[in-house]
Amino acid sequence: MTSGTLYGIGVGPGESDLLTLKAALLLQTVPVLAWPAPLEGEGMARTIAASFIPPGKVEIAIRMGFGPERDGADAAYDAGAAEIAAHLDAGRDVAVLCEGDPLFFGTFAYLLARLRRFPVLVVPGVASPMAAAALLAQPLSNLDDSLVVVPATRPEDEIERLLAAADSAVVMKIGRHLAKVARVLARLGLTDGARVVERVGLDGQRVLSVDEALTGPPAYFSLILVRK
Amino acid sequence: MTSGTLYGIGVGPGESDLLTLKAALLLQTVPVLAWPAPLEGEGMARTIAASFIPPGKVEIAIRMGFGPERDGADAAYDAGAAEIAAHLDAGRDVAVLCEGDPLFFGTFAYLLARLRRFPVLVVPGVASPMAAAALLAQPLSNLDDSLVVVPATRPEDEIERLLAAADSAVVMKIGRHLAKVARVLARLGLTDGARVVERVGLDGQRVLSVDEALTGPPAYFSLILVRK
Repeated sequence: MTSGTLYGIGVGPGESDLLTLKAALLLQTVPVLAWPAPLEGEGMARTIAASFIPPGKVEIAIRMGFGPERDGADAAYDAGAAEIAAHLDAGRDVAVLCEGDPLFFGTFAYLLARLRRFPVLVVPGVASPMAAAALLAQPLSNLDDSLVVVPATRPEDEIERLLAAADSAVVMKIGRHLAKVARVLARLGLTDGARVVERVGLDGQRVLSVDEALTGPPAYFSLILVRK
Repeated sequence: MTSGTLYGIGVGPGESDLLTLKAALLLQTVPVLAWPAPLEGEGMARTIAASFIPPGKVEIAIRMGFGPERDGADAAYDAGAAEIAAHLDAGRDVAVLCEGDPLFFGTFAYLLARLRRFPVLVVPGVASPMAAAALLAQPLSNLDDSLVVVPATRPEDEIERLLAAADSAVVMKIGRHLAKVARVLARLGLTDGARVVERVGLDGQRVLSVDEALTGPPAYFSLILVRK
């Protein structure tokens, strides 16, 4: 029997009309959908894509603890990949829903690493830095600029070295690391050119200065755009 | 009279079904479309979006010399912005079609800088590095990696410094700069982990090793994905 195809489908950063036409069509036709999710409730990718998912799909939730340690992530990916593989072996296509773009700072890589033996087709999506730049109507990068994208989870000296080297920057996954990133921005004189974008494309979307963000609660699902 | 809204619309990297639903809808409804183009013929963004553009639109071609010097670009943007402004002043919305994402290494920034006095709404799009990564089914960046994006037009030592500092990299706009980038990759031991992607999403799309690309003709519309 011919095995099914594994689709990695980017569903974009949040607004449901930022899905691509290709993604919307595949959600109609692929019989099995898988999506990463917290221990309870729907995952964000599933929520973004909800209005395009007809009834009657087989759905696989890949659940793991949320937070810096990603508790139980390896075991969850192993179990999810095994469940997906069973469908693919039986000739059924499976689509993994991915917030933003599947291969840009996403978790799809972990499933892909476990399922390389199957045919794979990735549908790229709109990534959150582009959505944040659109919200600000501010270039992410000029035509001949360099741009660095770095997760806030990285060590302070490394973030500083990367931000110093490039013309503009995106710091992803701010979460509990805002104070650290704020120190780097201050040392480099970049605080005024930085904007904190929280929950871009989602309910409660906000744009803040670094100082405003520092006085508020920790900003999950947030990133910082930095221009020189 | 209320002025019209300036839309910057990302039409994605090449395949027409990688437009977002929002972009496809706006192409139906906005009465005036503007697009950058070479001195003769249609621009790439116009070509990508063609099947979504109904008859009867007013269209503004913003034409300029193609190549590293962007001959006459400033004058072309000035003239294009003036033509767009006349429609906006008359209350008509204008959509600027942008290959990939409008604010990621795009020319939309040049029009935006000239038209800031009008209401602006940017629709983000799928950018070419994500499409290239999808074609390779290879992560652009892992979850905790840093990623640098640098145009090949930059000086050799700067490209080397940025590639050395990050976990993965995209070198954009290879064109006539392939030999320079290849030298940097060789010095950093990154040649084997690099893939040259030509014309992603367009007719004649190809994936090459650096050595294969070096023996061929100059690769316009190409980029290099680098993993460590």
